[in-house]
Amino acid sequence: MNLAEYLKSKKKVVDNALKDIIEEYAPLVSRLVESMRYSLMAGGKRLRPILCMAGATAVGANDNDVLPVACALELIHTYSLIHDDLPVMDNDDLRRGKPTNHKVFGDAIAVLAGDALLTEAFHLITSDWARHKVSDSALLDALSLISRAAGYRGMVGGQAADILSEGKNLDLSAVKFIHTHKTGALIMASVTSGAILGNGSKDQIRAIAEYGQNAGLAFQIADDILNIEGDSKTMGKNVGSDEERGKMTYPEVAGLEKSKEIQSKLVDKAVNALRDFDKSADPLRLIVHYIIERHK
Amino acid sequence: MNLAEYLKSKKKVVDNALKDIIEEYAPLVSRLVESMRYSLMAGGKRLRPILCMAGATAVGANDNDVLPVACALELIHTYSLIHDDLPVMDNDDLRRGKPTNHKVFGDAIAVLAGDALLTEAFHLITSDWARHKVSDSALLDALSLISRAAGYRGMVGGQAADILSEGKNLDLSAVKFIHTHKTGALIMASVTSGAILGNGSKDQIRAIAEYGQNAGLAFQIADDILNIEGDSKTMGKNVGSDEERGKMTYPEVAGLEKSKEIQSKLVDKAVNALRDFDKSADPLRLIVHYIIERHK
Repeated sequence: MNLAEYLKSKKKVVDNALKDIIEEYAPLVSRLVESMRYSLMAGGKRLRPILCMAGATAVGANDNDVLPVACALELIHTYSLIHDDLPVMDNDDLRRGKPTNHKVFGDAIAVLAGDALLTEAFHLITSDWARHKVSDSALLDALSLISRAAGYRGMVGGQAADILSEGKNLDLSAVKFIHTHKTGALIMASVTSGAILGNGSKDQIRAIAEYGQNAGLAFQIADDILNIEGDSKTMGKNVGSDEERGKMTYPEVAGLEKSKEIQSKLVDKAVNALRDFDKSADPLRLIVHYIIERHK
Repeated sequence: MNLAEYLKSKKKVVDNALKDIIEEYAPLVSRLVESMRYSLMAGGKRLRPILCMAGATAVGANDNDVLPVACALELIHTYSLIHDDLPVMDNDDLRRGKPTNHKVFGDAIAVLAGDALLTEAFHLITSDWARHKVSDSALLDALSLISRAAGYRGMVGGQAADILSEGKNLDLSAVKFIHTHKTGALIMASVTSGAILGNGSKDQIRAIAEYGQNAGLAFQIADDILNIEGDSKTMGKNVGSDEERGKMTYPEVAGLEKSKEIQSKLVDKAVNALRDFDKSADPLRLIVHYIIERHK
């Protein structure tokens, strides 16, 4: 299979679904709706929705059935970016080559747009759209996994640990904690929820979760490396900003070569976790390589 | 029945359940956990959880069965207070007589504590604790209602409209929009979700939603009036702050007497919506009077 074409076609499906997800509501909230749509349609790669769909495909399900949950994952990811970019957090002006949400809409609306996207993600998972495709029990299982991975024992916890550690000297285990929580947890939940919603067996779900854990950490280490080696044009954000901000990264703690070695082992582990799957898992096998090689 | 004793005993049940809901996780996120607990245990009246439990009681169910969702509603309410108090929003230093979350933990952790409480609310609703007591289908129905009421078509939308309207001259319909969304929607969802989880009939659920809509708006108008007539000691926050901030209220747009009249009509409507219920709905009948008479 051709990965570039796969990613392109799935991204199109996700973009199309996301386009109309935030509906006009009332004139008094139109600016909020505009702000939510601005960040949601700012040109993301849709990696988490695609991983969710690929997780369903790997267990032999129709990936169209998990589209509502896949979209919800992108809403959660988008909310986290809006809040992370706030002046009181990472204070970023640029995201995917565009002004960040709060630069356009102001800090108050940016906070609320994030809140609303997070809330709407859970609304989507409980919508008739989702419930017509998947059993109630599988939806609640997926929702439980996703909400844990997005909260204080997952993504929000990782961001808090990151913020609280700024300017401190961390060892590799602390940097690993931050990475596996801040980025890894939601990536793991994305691919695993696809397998759950696709009615995978317990062994299949466990294997895919293992894939997701390793791929998620590899993804964030790749980000660290890109932050040093990339240029701001292809990254769509300011390069070298981690160092400037006093954030510890894998290259800083373990060195660049060692970081690449760790990354490469994580990729092997991720692929190895899929050893009992047939070619249905090929998208997952290829995506983990793409994750570390992407230059945008 | 004695309302004061009812409220006291139910508040105790809720407080007890909330106390251990945010568990210790890892040293790197202990400050975040502390911040979440700080606001969650800051002495709220637990009105939304109690309304959820009373909604279940009204349809003849055991109110203990809806406790997980009742707690989730308090998590959502608490997150909204933390974010509303932020300097970029309403910039309040005092809440329930204590320094607001961001005054104690800083703005970044306050944003994240809010995010984490909101996310954990949805995790609670999908937890084994909740699923052992209520059917998957009822949980998803309640979750759908709550997430809609908390998001951009509900509470967050109301807060956005409120922020965007500061300093503007609004007519009564605009103030009503803000109130019914910012406060009313979650109150309506609290009591209605109790009826849904308690397996109420369609007619019962509709009647209780009507009760909730009227009670919710009455509650916010009462807040407007207390903001003028109360003193900061009994309110636990600065009185007259709405006016200072250029926020439009019912008394300002309709006058104090007319506002009290509207409030009184809403209470009548709320009580009347319960006309087909027996004494199981007495807690709801009494609570709506308490809502407008509370002095703290």
